[in-house]
Amino acid sequence: MKLIRDPIHGYIEVPDKLLRIVSSPLFQRLRYIKQTALAYMVYPGMNHTRFEHSLGVMYLSMEFFKYIKANSSLDFPLPEHEFIELIGATAMLHDIGHLPFSHTFENALFVAKRVYGLNVFEKDKKTHVILGTKLIEEGFSSELERSFKDLGDPVKFISRVLMETPSNSEEKLANLIISNFIDADRSDYLLRDSYYAGVGYGRFDIERLKRFLLFENGMLTVMNKALPIVEQFLLARMYMFQNVYFHNVVGLYNAILSQAIAHLLRDGYISVPETPEEFLYFVDNIIFSNLLKVRKELTNALMYRQGFKRIKIDPSIECIRFLDSMRDEIYEDMRVSDGLFVYHEFNDVPYREEKDEAVYILSPHGVERLKQVSPLIRSLSEIRKVVFGYHEGAEKLGRKYERILSDCESGKEDA
Amino acid sequence: MKLIRDPIHGYIEVPDKLLRIVSSPLFQRLRYIKQTALAYMVYPGMNHTRFEHSLGVMYLSMEFFKYIKANSSLDFPLPEHEFIELIGATAMLHDIGHLPFSHTFENALFVAKRVYGLNVFEKDKKTHVILGTKLIEEGFSSELERSFKDLGDPVKFISRVLMETPSNSEEKLANLIISNFIDADRSDYLLRDSYYAGVGYGRFDIERLKRFLLFENGMLTVMNKALPIVEQFLLARMYMFQNVYFHNVVGLYNAILSQAIAHLLRDGYISVPETPEEFLYFVDNIIFSNLLKVRKELTNALMYRQGFKRIKIDPSIECIRFLDSMRDEIYEDMRVSDGLFVYHEFNDVPYREEKDEAVYILSPHGVERLKQVSPLIRSLSEIRKVVFGYHEGAEKLGRKYERILSDCESGKEDA
Amino acid sequence: MKLIRDPIHGYIEVPDKLLRIVSSPLFQRLRYIKQTALAYMVYPGMNHTRFEHSLGVMYLSMEFFKYIKANSSLDFPLPEHEFIELIGATAMLHDIGHLPFSHTFENALFVAKRVYGLNVFEKDKKTHVILGTKLIEEGFSSELERSFKDLGDPVKFISRVLMETPSNSEEKLANLIISNFIDADRSDYLLRDSYYAGVGYGRFDIERLKRFLLFENGMLTVMNKALPIVEQFLLARMYMFQNVYFHNVVGLYNAILSQAIAHLLRDGYISVPETPEEFLYFVDNIIFSNLLKVRKELTNALMYRQGFKRIKIDPSIECIRFLDSMRDEIYEDMRVSDGLFVYHEFNDVPYREEKDEAVYILSPHGVERLKQVSPLIRSLSEIRKVVFGYHEGAEKLGRKYERILSDCESGKEDA
Amino acid sequence: MKLIRDPIHGYIEVPDKLLRIVSSPLFQRLRYIKQTALAYMVYPGMNHTRFEHSLGVMYLSMEFFKYIKANSSLDFPLPEHEFIELIGATAMLHDIGHLPFSHTFENALFVAKRVYGLNVFEKDKKTHVILGTKLIEEGFSSELERSFKDLGDPVKFISRVLMETPSNSEEKLANLIISNFIDADRSDYLLRDSYYAGVGYGRFDIERLKRFLLFENGMLTVMNKALPIVEQFLLARMYMFQNVYFHNVVGLYNAILSQAIAHLLRDGYISVPETPEEFLYFVDNIIFSNLLKVRKELTNALMYRQGFKRIKIDPSIECIRFLDSMRDEIYEDMRVSDGLFVYHEFNDVPYREEKDEAVYILSPHGVERLKQVSPLIRSLSEIRKVVFGYHEGAEKLGRKYERILSDCESGKEDA
Repeated sequence: MKLIRDPIHGYIEVPDKLLRIVSSPLFQRLRYIKQTALAYMVYPGMNHTRFEHSLGVMYLSMEFFKYIKANSSLDFPLPEHEFIELIGATAMLHDIGHLPFSHTFENALFVAKRVYGLNVFEKDKKTHVILGTKLIEEGFSSELERSFKDLGDPVKFISRVLMETPSNSEEKLANLIISNFIDADRSDYLLRDSYYAGVGYGRFDIERLKRFLLFENGMLTVMNKALPIVEQFLLARMYMFQNVYFHNVVGLYNAILSQAIAHLLRDGYISVPETPEEFLYFVDNIIFSNLLKVRKELTNALMYRQGFKRIKIDPSIECIRFLDSMRDEIYEDMRVSDGLFVYHEFNDVPYREEKDEAVYILSPHGVERLKQVSPLIRSLSEIRKVVFGYHEGAEKLGRKYERILSDCESGKEDA
Repeated sequence: MKLIRDPIHGYIEVPDKLLRIVSSPLFQRLRYIKQTALAYMVYPGMNHTRFEHSLGVMYLSMEFFKYIKANSSLDFPLPEHEFIELIGATAMLHDIGHLPFSHTFENALFVAKRVYGLNVFEKDKKTHVILGTKLIEEGFSSELERSFKDLGDPVKFISRVLMETPSNSEEKLANLIISNFIDADRSDYLLRDSYYAGVGYGRFDIERLKRFLLFENGMLTVMNKALPIVEQFLLARMYMFQNVYFHNVVGLYNAILSQAIAHLLRDGYISVPETPEEFLYFVDNIIFSNLLKVRKELTNALMYRQGFKRIKIDPSIECIRFLDSMRDEIYEDMRVSDGLFVYHEFNDVPYREEKDEAVYILSPHGVERLKQVSPLIRSLSEIRKVVFGYHEGAEKLGRKYERILSDCESGKEDA
Repeated sequence: MKLIRDPIHGYIEVPDKLLRIVSSPLFQRLRYIKQTALAYMVYPGMNHTRFEHSLGVMYLSMEFFKYIKANSSLDFPLPEHEFIELIGATAMLHDIGHLPFSHTFENALFVAKRVYGLNVFEKDKKTHVILGTKLIEEGFSSELERSFKDLGDPVKFISRVLMETPSNSEEKLANLIISNFIDADRSDYLLRDSYYAGVGYGRFDIERLKRFLLFENGMLTVMNKALPIVEQFLLARMYMFQNVYFHNVVGLYNAILSQAIAHLLRDGYISVPETPEEFLYFVDNIIFSNLLKVRKELTNALMYRQGFKRIKIDPSIECIRFLDSMRDEIYEDMRVSDGLFVYHEFNDVPYREEKDEAVYILSPHGVERLKQVSPLIRSLSEIRKVVFGYHEGAEKLGRKYERILSDCESGKEDA
Repeated sequence: MKLIRDPIHGYIEVPDKLLRIVSSPLFQRLRYIKQTALAYMVYPGMNHTRFEHSLGVMYLSMEFFKYIKANSSLDFPLPEHEFIELIGATAMLHDIGHLPFSHTFENALFVAKRVYGLNVFEKDKKTHVILGTKLIEEGFSSELERSFKDLGDPVKFISRVLMETPSNSEEKLANLIISNFIDADRSDYLLRDSYYAGVGYGRFDIERLKRFLLFENGMLTVMNKALPIVEQFLLARMYMFQNVYFHNVVGLYNAILSQAIAHLLRDGYISVPETPEEFLYFVDNIIFSNLLKVRKELTNALMYRQGFKRIKIDPSIECIRFLDSMRDEIYEDMRVSDGLFVYHEFNDVPYREEKDEAVYILSPHGVERLKQVSPLIRSLSEIRKVVFGYHEGAEKLGRKYERILSDCESGKEDA
């Protein structure tokens, strides 16, 4: 067992089996992938990495399980002490497949495909999960089989949990703990990102939340008493999206970075890694060290915040829908400008209920879906934002879209 | 004026004049130099940079001045509102000359010179100050002269303050605020490093401290009432040195990094920059992107904590003195091992009084030197530590020094 | 100027003029009136007092004014430095008229009147304001006139501001700063109560909020950028109401305390003070020292949480409306039980817009009312709760209402 | 099991057996005894009580035991799960015998005896322990015997632990956990008092400290790794003494309160309780409700900080020794002034090693005593302070001692 100092959770105690995972180069690699890409352009404290986040999710997933077990009547056939560590291992590996700058690289793949017509591997927000499960199979199998030999096939367990295709009740529970509306992953990143940003939101009462979880009939359920924390959690997440992850300036620079990465892919300087060995050195630095090879305008923007302007109109939802209809033209303009005109869309649904998917609340009246009991949560709607930016070398395009946005907004006013 | 979110000081308000400095590429460059080099190997949260630290020192130096002015009878001929911003500018630029990984690069220069016999620029802990003042002259002169045209020669002012050769009372005060036993620089880094490490020490009551400073007879003096904070401050610093900056494992990896940098210098892959343009891209990433060019043993150690062992004996001060006497042999062994055997010395004096240098305390009995009034501070002595590490490819050397240390320690026991 | 250590705001600097108010016995008296009555029964840390809260409101009101002034174009004829201190004085005195246990005493007056038919002074939630302005006129006039002699009639200013009957723009602004949906009073008590309760809600980003306030056209307006903080603030307040101020057990004991106070009033042991001298010793302790004179059942409940039970049904809003219709019967039952059967209603409207009353948000489109721009806030509705409790000596009544509530709830289920 | 919100430790989980103790009136009584007497006169947030402190000590003592057990090879014959709760019960009851205003009442007993010649029960700082063990025997025996029937005689266990007369290894360990240089009691009060004072000292890294404790050969030992925390702890305690507990103004008012209590004892308004029933209502309020019966000068001083002055000379240690020699005269002057002239001595030894008493540190060299390994701790010396105060009605005495102090100080200067 080893103690690791963590600003969010105090001490994280890493059990020996998990320590062997932590010590592997593929996991150490996460030290070199920032958690929030270029958010440090606006919030200078946000230099934290997927490494510490992954440790935090491991810690919280085991905490969640501990309290769920105490509150529920689980009758899993698995040896409990090993099972909790398997949950920890799964949690710890949930981001192992992330590419440099995480979601920004995924967006770059999208740009490469849609704007530049490259034939790249791209699966929306799932890319890192697919790459990750492959990496776990190829890079961690023997280690995991040795550690969890009494638990059947731990590699399959982890794959099914991370791919969200659980095949039994244990996998279902692990899946819900790690990846859900309210889960160990989001809990950790909200608290952690808020800490490093130094902002006054993003916090919620994790000590209370974790004590009121239970697992019944295949549903992860929160006791009534913690309903306010559930609301707080979803709002905290929404504020972090609105103000940090979807911050206009953060968005602008991530859009520019997507261009730079797409150029590097197009020009053959980098490619998506396929083997564990290739993954090993494929980290944020690899992009930075290639940054001098792309157009100087992109380099200077990304390193020194020089040269690009943002169109300072935040379009209404009506305008955003109008923009949807002209996406092809926008992508074509991006292609023509060769990276000097950039466009980025953000969208997030703070909470959505579907047939089998909801936050469940246990009240004296039985189990209810969150929207039934919380008018606050019912009031939340999808967040959509767009960012347009341009270098002075593409001022013409800048002016074009300034006009489009301005017309669109005043049109709305007329209506 | 612009607001920047800072986890340590809340909001930092940057006045327009200083904002122009912040926006310059040479200052933005500090985003890419970590404040505490490889400390993240042990404290995963320590990824923060010289950029945010420099903003913090700017903020605190202006706060200090504000309270000193209220508590003292300053009769400076300078327009006050501009003067406080000049202090802020000086503070903001105090680390502008740092090389990648800051002090670790300075140590690498020492290794390059002493171990590998290279002819490099190396001035102990002053390297970054000398480079910095040169950089300010070459890169910031016109900007500073425009901003502070009513204040004589601002570039000279800044140089003299940072080089600690003040030529008048104003420069003396600025010097004492920015670089002193208790100053804005140390105040910021203690609070900041402690926050990112997530440790329970390193904190002190900055709100109280700053309110009880004054400047009299050319001395920065602390009122009696804040004496406990002064003690707390010096102890906080001592604990941060003992447990974070001089942590054995942190030390081991910084020693390995020094080797890697020295090899890169020796083999001509990098060199100390001389012009502002060369400085611009000379940041942590430049080392990382060259890391694949050094011996694989060093690469793997630095990226994945693989392959090196630390000799687990913490020698007594007597042994350390004995080691002093065999330094030449140690350096020779390092040279022969070509980086596989590493040795690093740490030393820091928590507090020392000299003729004109002390923390002054204002009590009803007049101004006294800190050691006169604080037995606690009198009890502090120099911290000295050494770290030995070796790769399995240099096990013979590892065993040799294990034996030397063990003999030395048991010799001490006998005595 | 004097520094006072405050856990919420760090150091509070009290200017000399205000220090004279702080030192007066009528203000010192606030040390002996707890901020949140019996909330400590559930949250043991909540022993804080109106004294520190009043200092906090003074501090925040001056901070608010400072930023409002910087952001707005005020053209007040008053000398600014004195005016800000007058705002501070007003803020500091806003709770000066509170009776022991503050709102619980006000509720006791209601019980005394409605349940026991006493002829007591009772003005719903305004009692302490009316008593307070009288107290300021009688106890602070000469002090205030001396301190603020350049500002016309400071006593009238304060009265009109606290009674919410401003007669000019300056008074209007002071009124909005101190008593509004989002104001210095609420800001302080949310942060403070949350700190002493040790709960994870009730916090909001005060540093950001205060920097984005302005005063235009007689409206206190928040800039768009801080809209999320406004939402956060109103939600923080709502959570504090739901979980702390309206906590079932807190409510039960405050209801019992209301009975005890009503009995003391009825039996002539205490009466509402009329002169400053009578106010002086009329603090929480006076109730405690008389507690041995009321029925032992009440004494033991209030001191040692002994003997009372709460009916554990939280009625739906439909049931609460049904209960409204039988209030006379409930009061009669309370009267007959002579304090052994207690009932308490809570209600709070988190936010309501009226003709001239709203939170105004300044966006690029102009000034809008909060509900126009925030679906979240539109989703908030009135909070209503009731608490029933009974001593074992009134078990019959307890059972009666248990049945009524249970019927009512199941009726709802059927419907 | 019940969760109690605590601002210091988050959630405190109270096991059912201990919950029965918490619910007893004698324990609930601690809600009405402030932890730090009149410290709120200077630090307005310090209204916290022995109730929450006692819960905190319970929590920490069980945490300490948990880690000590994991780190040591204990072979206690007792059922472990019950034993840890017995430690918790002992910890929870350690302050049960405190009189109103705790140590200030103990000082009042001293004044009553020495100044006014009353025949009162007074055992220096042990009074509350002796009263407490008696109270436990009379008020908690049956409860404790029922709860801990498998553990022999729990009442004797608790008595021997609290009286520091352990009769076996288990009792010795419990004693060291609860009452030692570094223990659960001090850990809790330092963190707690610091939180409510809002000061920047008094904190130390409890998360680290508790993880590095062990029990070997009858000694509570701290592993080498946590030595800095041990130093930090002892210094934190020293700073809290110097700045909060022994604050001049706090001292002045506690001295005045001692006079008031001594007068109440002398005049027969109150007496030290002897039975559990008498204890029940003997809390802070009882003093306040009798405060109108003492001299109005004392009442006004204690409620409104009116009328008393402090002699503003902080005598040197030499002068304090001189004052020792004239104690009889001082007491006589106090008696003659009938409470209008007050004098109070403070002393505390931050750390002292005796034959069998020390903090033990486990290093690679074996177990060492703290002073052997810490020069910092060796530098600490006894804290001694005195406070003189007088009402304007005793100005003559005030002037007399002002002169004495001033002569003494200048004498020192000459020497």
